[in-house]
Amino acid sequence: MERAIYVGIDLGGTAIKAGICDADGRLIHTAECPTPVKEGAEAVVQRIAELARQLVEASPYHWDQVAGVGAGIPGFLDMEEGHVKHSVNLGWEDVPVKQWLEANLGKSVKIDNDANAAALGEAWGGAGAGIPNVVCYTLGTGVGGGIIVKRRLIQGFSGMAGEIGHIPVVPDDHAIRCGCGKYGCLETVSSATGMVHMAEAALKVGLSSSLSVLANITAKDVVEHAVAGDPIALNIVSIAAGYIGKSMAILSVVVNPQRFIIGGGVAQAGEFLLNLIDRHYRENALHTAQDGVEIVPASLGNNAGVVGAAGLHLFG
Amino acid sequence: MERAIYVGIDLGGTAIKAGICDADGRLIHTAECPTPVKEGAEAVVQRIAELARQLVEASPYHWDQVAGVGAGIPGFLDMEEGHVKHSVNLGWEDVPVKQWLEANLGKSVKIDNDANAAALGEAWGGAGAGIPNVVCYTLGTGVGGGIIVKRRLIQGFSGMAGEIGHIPVVPDDHAIRCGCGKYGCLETVSSATGMVHMAEAALKVGLSSSLSVLANITAKDVVEHAVAGDPIALNIVSIAAGYIGKSMAILSVVVNPQRFIIGGGVAQAGEFLLNLIDRHYRENALHTAQDGVEIVPASLGNNAGVVGAAGLHLFG
Repeated sequence: MERAIYVGIDLGGTAIKAGICDADGRLIHTAECPTPVKEGAEAVVQRIAELARQLVEASPYHWDQVAGVGAGIPGFLDMEEGHVKHSVNLGWEDVPVKQWLEANLGKSVKIDNDANAAALGEAWGGAGAGIPNVVCYTLGTGVGGGIIVKRRLIQGFSGMAGEIGHIPVVPDDHAIRCGCGKYGCLETVSSATGMVHMAEAALKVGLSSSLSVLANITAKDVVEHAVAGDPIALNIVSIAAGYIGKSMAILSVVVNPQRFIIGGGVAQAGEFLLNLIDRHYRENALHTAQDGVEIVPASLGNNAGVVGAAGLHLFG
Repeated sequence: MERAIYVGIDLGGTAIKAGICDADGRLIHTAECPTPVKEGAEAVVQRIAELARQLVEASPYHWDQVAGVGAGIPGFLDMEEGHVKHSVNLGWEDVPVKQWLEANLGKSVKIDNDANAAALGEAWGGAGAGIPNVVCYTLGTGVGGGIIVKRRLIQGFSGMAGEIGHIPVVPDDHAIRCGCGKYGCLETVSSATGMVHMAEAALKVGLSSSLSVLANITAKDVVEHAVAGDPIALNIVSIAAGYIGKSMAILSVVVNPQRFIIGGGVAQAGEFLLNLIDRHYRENALHTAQDGVEIVPASLGNNAGVVGAAGLHLFG
């Protein structure tokens, strides 16, 4: 029998990425095209189906070998039904993606949110390969995440498992409002947006910082100035890292992973940030739950979502 | 073929309880005997094996029908190996319970800690029956817990999953030291011990409370005086319930259960406590993660541990 391959789709507001993985999570072929968001949901799903077929045609494999198709999609989903309930990035409401794709492709389709797919990608074929219990953080505009228990992605009762950006970690007297409507979420302090917000607030009250010469501050700037020794920037990065470390201390007594994987744009700050996170984690976490636990950078970069989407069929 | 039965053992420092469950989590027969702690680990394991055989002999079933034996044990365990690494209650260090019991009984044996076993019992045959994603709290001397995801108990990398009593929830400026060595654990405020500690501290600084006439304050007293309208007692119960609600808000975006089950001695305080917990949970939890979520009392009482231990073979 010919070997099975899995097709993964990473659907974003600007691009559709597709990839073929083998049963061991190795990414073999990729393809990409713009997302025709303005043409509506049916056109986007049609384009995904075309890209999937083209991808396989341009590879050494043929369509019969495709054992399943998975898609990572930004938004709130009903994973069981395969519906996108609501997606701000795509402007979608109640789109039956799974049903449409299955009808078009004649293959079994699974969907999950993009953060879960990226987490599964890292756990299966990236920095968590071979480790059964893993938690992934994606530090970008927001803080995304995904939790893998005994090699399986957990979704929870209503698909909200692994929404670690919304763990309330900031004490009430320092908490600010999150986009979700609640106060003190991890995302309010440890995302790129949160770090920039803190920098702007510090400058606004007149604190002296090397960041003040910049026209538009980015999270990358904040980390770079922290590394260069600016005390305000360093304080902000310490706060961001501190709350990530604290959230990991929580996760260590809830799902008790062996490895935390840190990806996303902010994580490109590298060892400086990772070392701070590690220090705060060790200070806060129960000893018996942190022994043998590692905090490592993500290794698949932008391909994590495609690999994880391909893996949904095996581990979703 | 005759139907399979499962034997569960709830090992405590004073008593060994045993029970027979069918494959649907129904508890059919029970037996109990004192734990011969002073005679050492081998004698205790020998006594467990005898009790298990006697239990089945006294039932309408016979030994061939036993499809598996499970044991819930207080302490830190290596579940995979079936070792008790350390148990304060039993005075054990590195006891190969699984190996000894399997050799004695000729049956497959699984072990887990007592809080996980009780959680699985409620999830399988108690207040969570039929619900795939459940989190159980046991509010007693400490705060124990267990997490069931897609009907399976999760243990984590080193058996520390579901140790929800050690979720750090109290802000640093109010945090006191937990028995685990860390500060601000849920257990420091929401256990019976934590509530009594707060009551004693309030009386010590001279606050006026109806609790002051009591010689020895128990958590039951604190709840009863709160119900009767004592403001100090009410404040303590609100703090305890508030942090439980907050921890549930965290768990709702981490494992996203459909049902929280509250058991243990403190939970016998009933609706008054449950309503306070529910209110704090609703205030703190992300809306999309709390929709459809229920907080309910445990239903198996002291039998939860035996039922869950029996279920380890199916869901551990």
